Amino acid sequence: MLTLHHAPGSRSARILWLLEEMGLEYQLNQMEFHPKDLKKPEHKERHPLGRVPVLDDGDVRLFESGAIAQYLMARHGDGSLAPNKEDPRYPEFLQWFHYTEGTMMPPINTIVTQTVLLPPDRRNKEVLEMAQRLAGKVLVPVDAAVADREYLIGDFSGADIMLGHAMVASESLKLVNDNLPNLQAYIERIKSRPAFQKAINT
Amino acid sequence: MLTLHHAPGSRSARILWLLEEMGLEYQLNQMEFHPKDLKKPEHKERHPLGRVPVLDDGDVRLFESGAIAQYLMARHGDGSLAPNKEDPRYPEFLQWFHYTEGTMMPPINTIVTQTVLLPPDRRNKEVLEMAQRLAGKVLVPVDAAVADREYLIGDFSGADIMLGHAMVASESLKLVNDNLPNLQAYIERIKSRPAFQKAINT
Repeated sequence: MLTLHHAPGSRSARILWLLEEMGLEYQLNQMEFHPKDLKKPEHKERHPLGRVPVLDDGDVRLFESGAIAQYLMARHGDGSLAPNKEDPRYPEFLQWFHYTEGTMMPPINTIVTQTVLLPPDRRNKEVLEMAQRLAGKVLVPVDAAVADREYLIGDFSGADIMLGHAMVASESLKLVNDNLPNLQAYIERIKSRPAFQKAINT
Repeated sequence: MLTLHHAPGSRSARILWLLEEMGLEYQLNQMEFHPKDLKKPEHKERHPLGRVPVLDDGDVRLFESGAIAQYLMARHGDGSLAPNKEDPRYPEFLQWFHYTEGTMMPPINTIVTQTVLLPPDRRNKEVLEMAQRLAGKVLVPVDAAVADREYLIGDFSGADIMLGHAMVASESLKLVNDNLPNLQAYIERIKSRPAFQKAINT
Protein backbone atom coordinates (compact mmCIF):
# COMPACT_ATOMS: atom_id res chain seq x y z
CA MET A 1 0.00 0.00 0.00
CA LEU A 2 1.13 3.53 -0.81
CA THR A 3 1.05 6.07 2.02
CA LEU A 4 1.58 9.76 1.34
CA HIS A 5 2.61 12.01 4.20
CA HIS A 6 1.00 15.25 3.16
CA ALA A 7 0.39 18.81 4.28
CA PRO A 8 -2.06 21.00 2.37
CA GLY A 9 -0.46 24.09 0.84
CA SER A 10 2.90 22.37 0.34
CA ARG A 11 4.73 20.57 -2.47
CA SER A 12 3.09 17.33 -1.33
CA ALA A 13 -0.05 18.45 -3.20
CA ARG A 14 1.88 17.58 -6.35
CA ILE A 15 2.06 13.95 -5.29
CA LEU A 16 -1.54 13.81 -4.18
CA TRP A 17 -2.51 15.21 -7.57
CA LEU A 18 -0.31 12.65 -9.35
CA LEU A 19 -1.81 9.78 -7.35
CA GLU A 20 -5.27 11.00 -8.38
CA GLU A 21 -4.28 11.37 -12.05
CA MET A 22 -2.86 7.83 -11.99
CA GLY A 23 -5.93 6.40 -10.26
CA LEU A 24 -3.79 4.66 -7.64
CA GLU A 25 -5.03 3.57 -4.25
CA TYR A 26 -3.29 5.25 -1.35
CA GLN A 27 -3.54 6.16 2.30
CA LEU A 28 -3.09 9.74 3.40
CA ASN A 29 -1.33 10.85 6.54
CA GLN A 30 -2.52 14.42 6.62
CA MET A 31 -0.63 16.94 8.70
CA GLU A 32 -0.69 20.67 9.10
CA PHE A 33 2.03 22.67 7.36
CA HIS A 34 3.23 23.77 10.78
CA PRO A 35 6.21 22.82 12.99
CA LYS A 36 3.91 21.16 15.53
CA ASP A 37 3.27 18.43 12.96
CA LEU A 38 6.28 18.56 10.67
CA LYS A 39 8.98 18.80 13.35
CA LYS A 40 7.62 16.16 15.70
CA PRO A 41 9.95 13.16 16.26
CA GLU A 42 7.58 10.78 14.51
CA HIS A 43 7.79 12.80 11.30
CA LYS A 44 11.50 13.61 11.58
CA GLU A 45 12.07 9.88 11.50
CA ARG A 46 10.45 9.91 8.06
CA HIS A 47 12.27 13.03 6.86
CA PRO A 48 15.32 14.28 8.78
CA LEU A 49 14.39 17.91 8.07
CA GLY A 50 10.70 17.43 8.87
CA ARG A 51 9.44 18.18 5.38
CA VAL A 52 6.75 16.82 3.08
CA PRO A 53 6.06 14.96 0.88
CA VAL A 54 7.29 11.59 2.08
CA LEU A 55 6.05 8.44 0.37
CA ASP A 56 5.92 4.94 1.82
CA ASP A 57 5.49 2.06 -0.60
CA GLY A 58 5.71 -1.10 1.47
CA ASP A 59 9.30 -1.16 2.71
CA VAL A 60 10.37 1.69 0.45
CA ARG A 61 10.43 5.21 1.85
CA LEU A 62 11.56 8.30 -0.03
CA PHE A 63 11.25 12.07 0.01
CA GLU A 64 11.60 14.94 -2.52
CA SER A 65 8.57 15.56 -4.67
CA GLY A 66 10.51 15.23 -7.95
CA ALA A 67 11.92 11.88 -6.83
CA ILE A 68 8.53 10.60 -5.66
CA ALA A 69 6.86 11.67 -8.90
CA GLN A 70 9.46 9.88 -11.03
CA TYR A 71 9.30 6.84 -8.76
CA LEU A 72 5.52 6.55 -8.96
CA MET A 73 5.44 6.99 -12.73
CA ALA A 74 8.23 4.41 -13.20
CA ARG A 75 7.10 1.72 -10.75
CA HIS A 76 3.33 2.21 -10.74
CA GLY A 77 2.56 3.90 -14.07
CA ASP A 78 1.48 2.65 -17.47
CA GLY A 79 3.79 5.09 -19.27
CA SER A 80 1.04 7.54 -20.19
CA LEU A 81 2.38 10.36 -17.98
CA ALA A 82 6.10 9.89 -18.65
CA PRO A 83 7.42 9.32 -22.18
CA ASN A 84 10.05 6.59 -22.40
CA LYS A 85 13.60 7.44 -23.39
CA GLU A 86 13.07 6.66 -27.09
CA ASP A 87 10.08 8.99 -27.34
CA PRO A 88 10.85 12.25 -29.21
CA ARG A 89 9.12 14.15 -26.39
CA TYR A 90 11.48 12.70 -23.77
CA PRO A 91 14.01 15.61 -23.79
CA GLU A 92 11.38 18.31 -23.35
CA PHE A 93 9.57 16.23 -20.75
CA LEU A 94 12.76 16.13 -18.69
CA GLN A 95 13.52 19.78 -19.33
CA TRP A 96 10.21 21.09 -18.01
CA PHE A 97 10.09 18.57 -15.20
CA HIS A 98 13.46 19.83 -13.91
CA TYR A 99 12.76 23.49 -14.75
CA THR A 100 10.39 23.42 -11.78
CA GLU A 101 12.90 23.07 -8.96
CA GLY A 102 15.97 24.20 -10.92
CA THR A 103 14.65 27.51 -12.21
CA MET A 104 11.09 28.31 -11.15
CA MET A 105 10.99 27.46 -7.45
CA PRO A 106 14.02 29.43 -6.21
CA PRO A 107 12.34 32.84 -6.69
CA ILE A 108 8.98 31.42 -5.54
CA ASN A 109 10.62 30.11 -2.35
CA THR A 110 12.04 33.57 -1.69
CA ILE A 111 8.72 35.30 -2.36
CA VAL A 112 6.88 32.96 0.03
CA THR A 113 9.58 33.46 2.67
CA GLN A 114 9.43 37.24 2.30
CA THR A 115 5.63 37.55 2.25
CA VAL A 116 4.34 34.71 4.43
CA LEU A 117 6.94 32.81 6.45
CA LEU A 118 9.00 35.63 7.96
CA PRO A 119 7.46 37.95 10.54
CA PRO A 120 6.92 41.42 9.01
CA ASP A 121 9.82 43.03 10.88
CA ARG A 122 12.30 40.55 9.38
CA ARG A 123 11.17 40.92 5.77
CA ASN A 124 13.33 42.68 3.21
CA LYS A 125 11.69 44.64 0.42
CA GLU A 126 14.66 44.60 -1.93
CA VAL A 127 15.08 40.82 -1.66
CA LEU A 128 11.36 40.40 -2.35
CA GLU A 129 11.40 42.69 -5.38
CA MET A 130 14.48 41.01 -6.82
CA ALA A 131 12.74 37.62 -6.54
CA GLN A 132 9.57 39.01 -8.11
CA ARG A 133 11.52 40.38 -11.07
CA LEU A 134 13.31 37.04 -11.51
CA ALA A 135 10.05 35.08 -11.25
CA GLY A 136 8.53 37.33 -13.92
CA LYS A 137 11.41 36.47 -16.26
CA VAL A 138 11.39 32.72 -15.69
CA LEU A 139 7.64 32.54 -16.40
CA VAL A 140 8.18 33.81 -19.96
CA PRO A 141 9.62 30.57 -21.41
CA VAL A 142 6.72 28.63 -19.89
CA ASP A 143 4.23 30.99 -21.54
CA ALA A 144 6.02 30.38 -24.85
CA ALA A 145 6.03 26.61 -24.34
CA VAL A 146 2.25 26.45 -24.06
CA ALA A 147 1.52 28.98 -26.84
CA ASP A 148 0.47 26.30 -29.33
CA ARG A 149 -0.11 23.41 -26.98
CA GLU A 150 -2.57 22.32 -24.38
CA TYR A 151 0.16 21.00 -22.12
CA LEU A 152 3.94 21.28 -21.90
CA ILE A 153 4.80 18.38 -24.19
CA GLY A 154 1.43 18.26 -25.97
CA ASP A 155 -0.46 15.68 -23.96
CA PHE A 156 -0.77 16.03 -20.21
CA SER A 157 2.27 14.56 -18.43
CA GLY A 158 4.16 14.48 -15.14
CA ALA A 159 5.94 17.67 -16.24
CA ASP A 160 2.58 19.47 -15.96
CA ILE A 161 2.21 18.20 -12.42
CA MET A 162 5.56 19.58 -11.30
CA LEU A 163 5.59 22.81 -13.28
CA GLY A 164 1.80 23.24 -13.38
CA HIS A 165 1.73 23.22 -9.59
CA ALA A 166 4.38 25.95 -9.59
CA MET A 167 2.34 27.92 -12.14
CA VAL A 168 -0.75 27.84 -9.94
CA ALA A 169 1.44 28.99 -7.04
CA SER A 170 2.79 31.79 -9.26
CA GLU A 171 -0.74 32.89 -10.01
CA SER A 172 -1.61 32.95 -6.30
CA LEU A 173 1.46 35.11 -5.73
CA LYS A 174 0.18 37.58 -8.40
CA LEU A 175 3.13 36.90 -10.70
CA VAL A 176 1.08 35.97 -13.78
CA ASN A 177 -0.05 39.11 -15.57
CA ASP A 178 -1.85 39.77 -18.85
CA ASN A 179 1.44 39.74 -20.73
CA LEU A 180 1.40 35.97 -20.27
CA PRO A 181 -1.92 35.02 -21.93
CA ASN A 182 -0.86 31.51 -22.92
CA LEU A 183 0.21 30.81 -19.39
CA GLN A 184 -3.07 32.19 -18.02
CA ALA A 185 -5.00 29.81 -20.26
CA TYR A 186 -2.71 26.91 -19.29
CA ILE A 187 -3.29 27.59 -15.60
CA GLU A 188 -7.06 27.49 -16.20
CA ARG A 189 -6.69 24.12 -17.93
CA ILE A 190 -4.64 22.83 -15.00
CA LYS A 191 -7.15 24.09 -12.44
CA SER A 192 -10.08 22.52 -14.27
CA ARG A 193 -8.67 19.00 -14.01
CA PRO A 194 -10.72 16.95 -11.51
CA ALA A 195 -7.60 15.29 -10.07
CA PHE A 196 -6.03 18.70 -9.42
CA GLN A 197 -9.18 19.94 -7.74
CA LYS A 198 -9.34 16.89 -5.53
CA ALA A 199 -5.67 17.29 -4.54
CA ILE A 200 -5.94 20.97 -3.81
CA ASN A 201 -9.11 20.57 -1.77
CA THR A 202 -7.83 17.70 0.39
CA MET B 1 27.71 14.69 -31.93
CA LEU B 2 27.10 16.04 -28.46
CA THR B 3 27.82 19.72 -27.85
CA LEU B 4 27.82 21.17 -24.35
CA HIS B 5 27.40 24.90 -23.91
CA HIS B 6 29.42 25.46 -20.79
CA ALA B 7 30.66 28.18 -18.45
CA PRO B 8 33.25 27.33 -15.80
CA GLY B 9 32.05 27.91 -12.26
CA SER B 10 28.41 27.14 -13.12
CA ARG B 11 26.09 24.13 -12.97
CA SER B 12 27.29 23.14 -16.44
CA ALA B 13 30.40 21.67 -14.77
CA ARG B 14 28.08 18.87 -13.62
CA ILE B 15 27.42 17.89 -17.21
CA LEU B 16 31.05 18.19 -18.26
CA TRP B 17 31.92 15.91 -15.33
CA LEU B 18 29.21 13.43 -16.33
CA LEU B 19 30.40 13.37 -19.94
CA GLU B 20 33.90 12.60 -18.67
CA GLU B 21 32.67 9.88 -16.29
CA MET B 22 30.73 8.31 -19.17
CA GLY B 23 33.66 8.51 -21.54
CA LEU B 24 31.53 10.13 -24.23
CA GLU B 25 32.86 12.22 -27.09
CA TYR B 26 31.66 15.79 -27.10
CA GLN B 27 32.36 19.28 -28.32
CA LEU B 28 32.57 22.14 -25.88
CA ASN B 29 31.29 25.64 -26.49
CA GLN B 30 33.03 27.37 -23.66
CA MET B 31 31.74 30.73 -22.50
CA GLU B 32 32.42 33.02 -19.60
CA PHE B 33 29.91 33.04 -16.74
CA HIS B 34 29.21 36.66 -17.58
CA PRO B 35 26.33 38.49 -19.29
CA LYS B 36 28.56 39.40 -22.25
CA ASP B 37 28.53 35.71 -23.22
CA LEU B 38 25.38 34.34 -21.60
CA LYS B 39 22.98 37.12 -22.61
CA LYS B 40 24.11 37.49 -26.21
CA PRO B 41 21.41 36.76 -28.82
CA GLU B 42 23.21 33.68 -30.08
CA HIS B 43 23.04 32.08 -26.63
CA LYS B 44 19.55 33.32 -25.78
CA GLU B 45 18.41 31.40 -28.82
CA ARG B 46 19.68 28.28 -27.06
CA HIS B 47 18.30 29.18 -23.64
CA PRO B 48 15.67 31.94 -23.39
CA LEU B 49 17.09 33.08 -20.04
CA GLY B 50 20.70 32.92 -21.19
CA ARG B 51 21.76 30.19 -18.79
CA VAL B 52 24.00 27.15 -18.93
CA PRO B 53 24.18 24.21 -19.35
CA VAL B 54 22.54 23.65 -22.72
CA LEU B 55 23.12 20.37 -24.54
CA ASP B 56 22.83 19.73 -28.27
CA ASP B 57 22.58 16.14 -29.41
CA GLY B 58 22.07 16.24 -33.16
CA ASP B 59 18.64 17.82 -33.56
CA VAL B 60 17.82 17.58 -29.87
CA ARG B 61 18.44 20.61 -27.68
CA LEU B 62 17.66 20.83 -23.97
CA PHE B 63 18.57 22.78 -20.85
CA GLU B 64 18.43 22.23 -17.05
CA SER B 65 21.34 20.27 -15.63
CA GLY B 66 19.08 17.66 -13.99
CA ALA B 67 17.27 17.06 -17.28
CA ILE B 68 20.50 16.85 -19.26
CA ALA B 69 22.04 14.43 -16.76
CA GLN B 70 19.01 12.12 -16.89
CA TYR B 71 18.89 12.40 -20.68
CA LEU B 72 22.55 11.49 -21.15
CA MET B 73 22.37 8.54 -18.75
CA ALA B 74 19.18 7.25 -20.42
CA ARG B 75 20.08 7.71 -24.09
CA HIS B 76 23.85 7.39 -24.00
CA GLY B 77 24.60 5.36 -20.85
CA ASP B 78 25.18 1.70 -20.18
CA GLY B 79 23.14 1.83 -16.95
CA SER B 80 26.15 1.90 -14.64
CA LEU B 81 25.45 5.44 -13.36
CA ALA B 82 21.65 5.21 -13.06
CA PRO B 83 19.96 2.16 -11.52
CA ASN B 84 16.94 0.97 -13.46
CA LYS B 85 13.50 1.13 -11.92
CA GLU B 86 13.57 -2.46 -10.61
CA ASP B 87 16.86 -1.92 -8.78
CA PRO B 88 16.44 -1.66 -4.99
CA ARG B 89 18.69 1.43 -5.05
CA TYR B 90 16.36 3.23 -7.49
CA PRO B 91 14.33 5.15 -4.85
CA GLU B 92 17.38 6.52 -3.03
CA PHE B 93 19.07 7.30 -6.32
CA LEU B 94 16.10 9.48 -7.25
CA GLN B 95 15.86 10.98 -3.78
CA TRP B 96 19.45 12.25 -3.67
CA PHE B 97 19.41 13.27 -7.31
CA HIS B 98 16.40 15.54 -6.66
CA TYR B 99 17.59 16.64 -3.21
CA THR B 100 20.18 18.72 -5.07
CA GLU B 101 17.88 21.29 -6.67
CA GLY B 102 14.88 20.73 -4.40
CA THR B 103 16.58 21.17 -1.03
CA MET B 104 20.31 21.92 -1.25
CA MET B 105 20.59 24.54 -3.96
CA PRO B 106 18.03 27.11 -2.72
CA PRO B 107 20.18 28.21 0.25
CA ILE B 108 23.35 27.90 -1.85
CA ASN B 109 21.82 30.16 -4.51
CA THR B 110 21.02 32.75 -1.85
CA ILE B 111 24.50 32.57 -0.33
CA VAL B 112 26.15 33.05 -3.74
CA THR B 113 23.80 35.94 -4.51
CA GLN B 114 24.52 37.58 -1.16
CA THR B 115 28.30 37.10 -1.19
CA VAL B 116 29.31 37.24 -4.87
CA LEU B 117 26.64 38.35 -7.32
CA LEU B 118 25.18 41.42 -5.60
CA PRO B 119 27.29 44.56 -5.19
CA PRO B 120 28.24 44.98 -1.50
CA ASP B 121 25.82 47.85 -0.89
CA ARG B 122 22.85 45.70 -1.95
CA ARG B 123 23.70 42.68 0.21
CA ASN B 124 21.63 41.80 3.25
CA LYS B 125 23.31 40.22 6.26
CA GLU B 126 20.16 38.70 7.75
CA VAL B 127 19.18 37.03 4.46
CA LEU B 128 22.71 35.64 4.17
CA GLU B 129 22.78 34.32 7.72
CA MET B 130 19.35 32.70 7.37
CA ALA B 131 20.55 30.90 4.21
CA GLN B 132 23.76 29.81 5.95
CA ARG B 133 21.79 28.33 8.85
CA LEU B 134 19.48 26.52 6.46
CA ALA B 135 22.38 25.20 4.39
CA GLY B 136 24.00 23.89 7.58
CA LYS B 137 20.83 21.95 8.35
CA VAL B 138 20.31 20.46 4.91
CA LEU B 139 23.91 19.18 4.82
CA VAL B 140 23.27 16.95 7.85
CA PRO B 141 21.20 14.27 6.04
CA VAL B 142 23.89 14.08 3.35
CA ASP B 143 26.57 13.53 6.01
CA ALA B 144 24.42 10.72 7.44
CA ALA B 145 23.86 9.18 3.99
CA VAL B 146 27.59 8.74 3.39
CA ALA B 147 28.46 7.62 6.94
CA ASP B 148 28.87 3.96 5.95
CA ARG B 149 29.18 4.34 2.21
CA GLU B 150 31.67 5.56 -0.31
CA TYR B 151 28.95 7.18 -2.40
CA LEU B 152 25.29 8.11 -1.97
CA ILE B 153 23.80 4.82 -3.09
CA GLY B 154 26.93 2.73 -2.50
CA ASP B 155 28.58 2.75 -5.91
CA PHE B 156 29.25 6.04 -7.68
CA SER B 157 26.18 7.24 -9.62
CA GLY B 158 24.59 10.24 -11.28
CA ALA B 159 23.25 11.27 -7.87
CA ASP B 160 26.86 11.93 -6.80
CA ILE B 161 27.35 14.17 -9.81
CA MET B 162 24.36 16.34 -8.97
CA LEU B 163 24.67 16.39 -5.18
CA GLY B 164 28.45 15.93 -5.10
CA HIS B 165 28.85 19.08 -7.17
CA ALA B 166 26.66 20.94 -4.64
CA MET B 167 28.78 19.50 -1.80
CA VAL B 168 31.99 20.81 -3.33
CA ALA B 169 30.27 24.18 -3.73
CA SER B 170 29.19 24.01 -0.07
CA GLU B 171 32.76 23.41 0.95
CA SER B 172 33.94 26.40 -1.08
CA LEU B 173 31.32 28.50 0.70
CA LYS B 174 32.72 27.34 4.09
CA LEU B 175 29.53 25.52 5.01
CA VAL B 176 31.12 22.13 5.71
CA ASN B 177 32.58 22.10 9.22
CA ASP B 178 34.17 19.41 11.39
CA ASN B 179 30.76 18.35 12.67
CA LEU B 180 30.24 16.75 9.26
CA PRO B 181 33.22 14.35 9.05
CA ASN B 182 31.54 11.84 6.75
CA LEU B 183 30.69 14.62 4.34
CA GLN B 184 34.24 15.97 4.47
CA ALA B 185 35.58 12.53 3.53
CA TYR B 186 32.96 12.19 0.78
CA ILE B 187 33.96 15.54 -0.70
CA GLU B 188 37.58 14.41 -0.78
CA ARG B 189 36.54 11.25 -2.64
CA ILE B 190 34.59 13.35 -5.13
CA LYS B 191 37.47 15.76 -5.68
CA SER B 192 39.95 12.94 -6.25
CA ARG B 193 38.04 11.54 -9.22
CA PRO B 194 39.93 12.24 -12.45
CA ALA B 195 36.73 13.06 -14.36
CA PHE B 196 35.77 15.63 -11.71
CA GLN B 197 39.21 17.20 -11.85
CA LYS B 198 39.08 17.43 -15.61
CA ALA B 199 35.63 19.03 -15.50
CA ILE B 200 36.52 21.55 -12.84
CA ASN B 201 39.76 22.54 -14.54
CA THR B 202 38.25 23.04 -18.01
